[in-house]
Amino acid sequence: MTSLNLDVKKLLKIAYEEALIGFNEGGVPVGAALLDSQGNLLGKGRNRRVQDDDPSVHGETAAFKNAGRQTCYTDKILVTTLAPCWYCSGLIRQFRIGTVIVGESQNFEGHLDWLREAGVEVIELNDVGCKVLMAKFIQQNPDIWNEDIGECGNHTHA
Amino acid sequence: MTSLNLDVKKLLKIAYEEALIGFNEGGVPVGAALLDSQGNLLGKGRNRRVQDDDPSVHGETAAFKNAGRQTCYTDKILVTTLAPCWYCSGLIRQFRIGTVIVGESQNFEGHLDWLREAGVEVIELNDVGCKVLMAKFIQQNPDIWNEDIGECGNHTHA
Repeated sequence: MTSLNLDVKKLLKIAYEEALIGFNEGGVPVGAALLDSQGNLLGKGRNRRVQDDDPSVHGETAAFKNAGRQTCYTDKILVTTLAPCWYCSGLIRQFRIGTVIVGESQNFEGHLDWLREAGVEVIELNDVGCKVLMAKFIQQNPDIWNEDIGECGNHTHA
Repeated sequence: MTSLNLDVKKLLKIAYEEALIGFNEGGVPVGAALLDSQGNLLGKGRNRRVQDDDPSVHGETAAFKNAGRQTCYTDKILVTTLAPCWYCSGLIRQFRIGTVIVGESQNFEGHLDWLREAGVEVIELNDVGCKVLMAKFIQQNPDIWNEDIGECGNHTHA
């Protein structure tokens, strides 16, 4: 319970600004930041699938990378504009990131309950700005969005 | 069921050679490769935590990155020297990688049943070479290994 005394909307703004830069670059507008328990920024980043032709960089993994090596994440806070996919949820769980602040889970539901069940503190902000930006991108670029979440209409598993 | 007609030991060798290079660089010796359904190499890579001071690059995510953007993964094969952690298991599940060949799951158990339950074909080879290399690294570098899997002795969740 690291984030209760922090201004979560202010932290979300760091992630949103990354998402907005990504949108203006033509990329998938998901931004994220990793912070310490006092809310100090350790690293931030955004999805870079389009910008770098790199499918491995989601907003959350970019923030994680840019924060550099940390010996422990249980007291860290990850803020992201969109509910994390399995890839990023797995990152959160493996490294035991203590708190996750989520801008919205309307455009992508993610696996927030799976994280909560593993003991992660998840705060969903239902943020209008995040919802509008993501919806706009998905509407304009459905193929890129589907590629980014592995939706290819040929599902062999859940 | 893409891999049944392939020489899985030959595919594992690609991943093992990456792991061995990583070991000789002083890095976490986990290697991986992404292949098409015919066993053609799309990309390979290894854990780069030590080499690049980059905590986001596990063997599996390196192979995924180096394979470049793919529109569909259901017919792809991921071969890795070690059972994937939650981060890499999440990657496999999100992108619906059809088949995963695992060198060993003795040094790290991973979440093979979770993947199987999601419909992933998982082949565990119980490979002696992979086991010996990984065990040697863990014995010599317990702190780096613990850092790589988020073990910091301060667990707030599962």
